[in-house]
Amino acid sequence: MSKVYLVGAGPGDPGLITVKGMELLKKADVIIYDRLGGGGKLLKHARPDAELIYVGKKAGAHTIKQDRINQILVEKAREGKMVVRLKGGDPFVFGRGGEEVMHLVKKGIDYEIVPGITTPIALPALAGIPITDRRYSSSFTVVTGHRARGKRLINYSELKADTIIVLMGVKNLPLIIDDLLKTRSPKTPVAIIEKGTTSQERTIITTLGEAKEVAKSENVRPPAVTIIGEVVNLRKRFVKE
Amino acid sequence: MSKVYLVGAGPGDPGLITVKGMELLKKADVIIYDRLGGGGKLLKHARPDAELIYVGKKAGAHTIKQDRINQILVEKAREGKMVVRLKGGDPFVFGRGGEEVMHLVKKGIDYEIVPGITTPIALPALAGIPITDRRYSSSFTVVTGHRARGKRLINYSELKADTIIVLMGVKNLPLIIDDLLKTRSPKTPVAIIEKGTTSQERTIITTLGEAKEVAKSENVRPPAVTIIGEVVNLRKRFVKE
Repeated sequence: MSKVYLVGAGPGDPGLITVKGMELLKKADVIIYDRLGGGGKLLKHARPDAELIYVGKKAGAHTIKQDRINQILVEKAREGKMVVRLKGGDPFVFGRGGEEVMHLVKKGIDYEIVPGITTPIALPALAGIPITDRRYSSSFTVVTGHRARGKRLINYSELKADTIIVLMGVKNLPLIIDDLLKTRSPKTPVAIIEKGTTSQERTIITTLGEAKEVAKSENVRPPAVTIIGEVVNLRKRFVKE
Repeated sequence: MSKVYLVGAGPGDPGLITVKGMELLKKADVIIYDRLGGGGKLLKHARPDAELIYVGKKAGAHTIKQDRINQILVEKAREGKMVVRLKGGDPFVFGRGGEEVMHLVKKGIDYEIVPGITTPIALPALAGIPITDRRYSSSFTVVTGHRARGKRLINYSELKADTIIVLMGVKNLPLIIDDLLKTRSPKTPVAIIEKGTTSQERTIITTLGEAKEVAKSENVRPPAVTIIGEVVNLRKRFVKE
């Protein structure tokens, strides 16, 4: 009955994992997890005797290489354990879940995907920004702001969707903003959500023309999600009285 | 204590709503819901005495106008009821949640957003297609295929993200495909997921060059989600042995 469940943890709040994800988390023999939002509250739902293995990143560097994570998944499954691979957000949205699945398939290990609420959609919603709106946005693009070494550069200015959501883009924000300004007005509203779902969450509202300066003066630090588009302005109208 | 909770139902499987969404659903006095995936299984978790109000679409036409939905939300909240506004997927991803929130704010009604797993991300994942992949896709765009009357046309060919996900696009698929072919190779892989999360779910794999013909010969019917991009090819490598 050994099996690996790739479970999306959602943004970190234990209320925002799926019902199925929570059930699996409570039953698992082994939980292999990345850095999760919500300050680790999710892991409190694990069995007291569950084995918890942290394989997340520290400060930009992988603490454990992907190959090693793949190995651990297979090892634990072959020990006959029920393994939950818990990934922040959704396993398939910038989560490298696909690579893990392929490795499991290659090794003949049974697996199951349990989707999670993806951070680039949940964080704006929780901050009062609908990423689509019938009047202002009929498309949105989610893009990584982390240009991996040796990979082709992303041409942000070519992404013409009404709303752009940039993940992991704090370091490259000046480059990304300059690129977006080639095809978008400097008046385009921008929201930067820093440390979303933590007690230090902060939402900064600015414009494309001023975003570089503001991010610098406000000393924005990772992790942050940046939303570019007219829908950012709707936030004002969502404020509770 | 009256309050309106805008709850994302996710794709319809009761295991794929959030823990918090399920708790609210079980407690609600009134549940105002759209057409949900999963054949209505979610509603079985409502209190036996809860008032269930269907306000969803029928065959392309709104059965109840948005203004009337807004009114019902306010009326029920003012009766002192705990109201759950249950929306398929996520309330803010093509869900018109923003319009409902604005109306509630205008009328001074307290509200809370509970995100849900959005269909355009969950359906590919459950069908074995990761919408991002470190090797093939560092961006994805979700776009509606339903061009509302009187609205500006969407220029699909300008959406340059690595993966394109089209919602509600069955009727306009030929137009959308022709538009995408202006900037993409006819060999680009395409997946059409029809009636996702139901027992009639069907995934058709084709290419951009052949998609129109295939959709016609396979008689694809709404609802369907169409995924365009190299990641569709990863599906083969996800097949369990």
